[in-house]
Amino acid sequence: MPHIVGMDVLDVRFPTSRELDGSDAMNPDPDYSAAYVVLHADEGPDGYGFAFTIGRGNDVQAAAIRALESHVVGLPVPQDAAALASLSQQLVGDSQLRWLGPEKGVAHMAVGAVVNAAWDLAARRADKPVWQFLSDMTPEEIVGLVDFRYLTDAITPDEAYEILNNAQAGKAERANEILANGYRAYTTSPGWLGYSDDKLVRLSKQAVADGFDMIKLKVGGDLDDDIRRLRLARQAVGDDIRIAVDANQRWDVGIAVEWMRALAPFNPYWIEEPTSPDDILGHQAIAEQIAPIKVATGEHVQNRVVFKQMLQAKALGVLQLDAARVGGVNENVAILLLAAKFGVPVCPHAGGVGLCELVRHLSMFDYVAVSASKADRAIEWVDHLHEHFTDPAIVRGGHYLAPRKPGFSARMHDATLRRYRFPDGPEWTGENS
Amino acid sequence: MPHIVGMDVLDVRFPTSRELDGSDAMNPDPDYSAAYVVLHADEGPDGYGFAFTIGRGNDVQAAAIRALESHVVGLPVPQDAAALASLSQQLVGDSQLRWLGPEKGVAHMAVGAVVNAAWDLAARRADKPVWQFLSDMTPEEIVGLVDFRYLTDAITPDEAYEILNNAQAGKAERANEILANGYRAYTTSPGWLGYSDDKLVRLSKQAVADGFDMIKLKVGGDLDDDIRRLRLARQAVGDDIRIAVDANQRWDVGIAVEWMRALAPFNPYWIEEPTSPDDILGHQAIAEQIAPIKVATGEHVQNRVVFKQMLQAKALGVLQLDAARVGGVNENVAILLLAAKFGVPVCPHAGGVGLCELVRHLSMFDYVAVSASKADRAIEWVDHLHEHFTDPAIVRGGHYLAPRKPGFSARMHDATLRRYRFPDGPEWTGENS
Repeated sequence: MPHIVGMDVLDVRFPTSRELDGSDAMNPDPDYSAAYVVLHADEGPDGYGFAFTIGRGNDVQAAAIRALESHVVGLPVPQDAAALASLSQQLVGDSQLRWLGPEKGVAHMAVGAVVNAAWDLAARRADKPVWQFLSDMTPEEIVGLVDFRYLTDAITPDEAYEILNNAQAGKAERANEILANGYRAYTTSPGWLGYSDDKLVRLSKQAVADGFDMIKLKVGGDLDDDIRRLRLARQAVGDDIRIAVDANQRWDVGIAVEWMRALAPFNPYWIEEPTSPDDILGHQAIAEQIAPIKVATGEHVQNRVVFKQMLQAKALGVLQLDAARVGGVNENVAILLLAAKFGVPVCPHAGGVGLCELVRHLSMFDYVAVSASKADRAIEWVDHLHEHFTDPAIVRGGHYLAPRKPGFSARMHDATLRRYRFPDGPEWTGENS
Repeated sequence: MPHIVGMDVLDVRFPTSRELDGSDAMNPDPDYSAAYVVLHADEGPDGYGFAFTIGRGNDVQAAAIRALESHVVGLPVPQDAAALASLSQQLVGDSQLRWLGPEKGVAHMAVGAVVNAAWDLAARRADKPVWQFLSDMTPEEIVGLVDFRYLTDAITPDEAYEILNNAQAGKAERANEILANGYRAYTTSPGWLGYSDDKLVRLSKQAVADGFDMIKLKVGGDLDDDIRRLRLARQAVGDDIRIAVDANQRWDVGIAVEWMRALAPFNPYWIEEPTSPDDILGHQAIAEQIAPIKVATGEHVQNRVVFKQMLQAKALGVLQLDAARVGGVNENVAILLLAAKFGVPVCPHAGGVGLCELVRHLSMFDYVAVSASKADRAIEWVDHLHEHFTDPAIVRGGHYLAPRKPGFSARMHDATLRRYRFPDGPEWTGENS
């Protein structure tokens, strides 16, 4: 039986702040970064995962991943749902490390990176992409992946089983459909706050020409600017294209309501991160007051317990799971089950570095084996940094193609790791540049 | 003008897991630890602060504190409310580091450690203990300390000012009363889960003899054990002593309600941390169903936004602020103002290492200048590890004495830092032991 015999952790940073890609109301100058983890097996493929950060502190995130090494090195390579459930529980359950969260922030993202690397390893060994590896599990196995602690007032294991069992019918057809047609995407590329009006209009028209039926604009810096930009975008794309807007946590509850009422004439589809991601009651209040505009959040939602409450409170019209914020695949399965239970569509957060690569697996699994629905669902698409991955996300005609290579698509090219390693790679030292 | 010219960060750990002091249902073997920070001034006293952890991961916490160095080193030594507000905003507002939270977990505790060290430094320079340094500020200055982002749906700056202005009357008398009589304490020392029944009974009786009118027991491991232990404790202390119980997040909502109904015959005063500290709606549901038993939480509540919602939802009968979990004194001032606005008593979490030393300043400030009330308020007292501090907390006759030395009482003895430094101090290498 093969074993995990070593773990490497690398601080990899991309100098995205030199352009204004990724600029928004709260994050003016991000350097998209990954605290990147490799699980070495003594036989067969290795496993790859990462936590996503935006620059400073990526070293702290890497240190938090290293703190998990003793839980992983020495284990048999996980091969099935039971082994992946056990590994996830062990990482989340370290009683001393738990104090650093619990189940939130740096410590929890570290768990997510290692859990995702273990899934990558297991799926590579099974010679399947993660979305198929997951979809091929039985409902019992999938229920067994989930830690139901703190969830049973909203969903029980029996209810989860029922959701999964109902999705058994038509599973093979839906998998084939994904392989043939992919999964709908929407694009954030036109709408970064640092872009000029001309660039916004040009990229919005281009998005429609490329087959997207939804675009997203960053808002929250200045109301007059936002009104002008949203008007321009609406003129550019016409009335049949959805336009979402994203405030990146900029507002208090009252301001969010006022601002969205001012933008309402341009028919925004959702407002994303209107306020603190911790503010369940705030999202609830905003959702009540700006309907039918939907409220969306998730990229900073720390764990399943907060998502549970967002759903219980009817605070979310759209749930935006993130592959690298919570405790990895296992917790995201819990979140998909919660969303299915409450009938809320999941539109994952992506962009950043590597997030598009990962979340497509989760949405495709959701369609094949959990919600069995594509209604009002789309995966965010931001077209940058994909060239650094060995199994990059590809979007054609407004749809993510299904990944076919084994694993979770988290692996970066060796040349990327050498060049962008912080602080000693040539991209940062200035050598060879 | 003196400046901060350097910052040292130390990983200090105490081998408390060798005894069962501190054992509870979720934390069976904590090694109480501090990621300890020293701000060096080029003239006059230095400033001291720390984040509290329970062992593994204290190095990660220390790394997160080090990541803040560039924000602090080079600044003038803060001397007034405006400088302390500005420093706090700068630390919380680093847009790249913010991604690691936001405002939660390792990254936020790091901010808290540095902010608290800056308060220690400022108060030492002002030659006052922090509780007096704070109480001597004007209402305007105190309002200026607070970041009201995400709070204005619950408390506005004007409402905060009104609370503080109303407390101006009688401030000097209350400060004198604190100096003369101290502040009521309750004790957790009898109730650790690892203690025998005999030890529980003996220490419970001792607590009453020592002048305490409230004790606390850990629960949540086994219901029959808890019933037996609570019965024994009730018999030992009689009906006039309050007994709080603490489940350390062990339960789901439904189990919490059942368990507390089974313990209700022994008249527990509050149930602390019945479930996930992230579960605002869960605490609300529990509080509704077990009244008149109160629900208490706070030691793991990540920031003011979660406390805000706990109060909005009427989920808390008692608010347990923690000196080292949130973003330091500034955010704790916000939390005290929220509690005063909602009329909920604050009974700080202490124990750990150094928490008793710090929280007494916050409760005494609350009495002098914010809530102006002692009703149903008491500070947790756990009698261990105080010998490591240069200005240790002292409890006499069930009351914390008022600290009189300048600063925030966070400084440890040099001999302690040498002995308990991890992993190279002699306590951990085995030399000289």
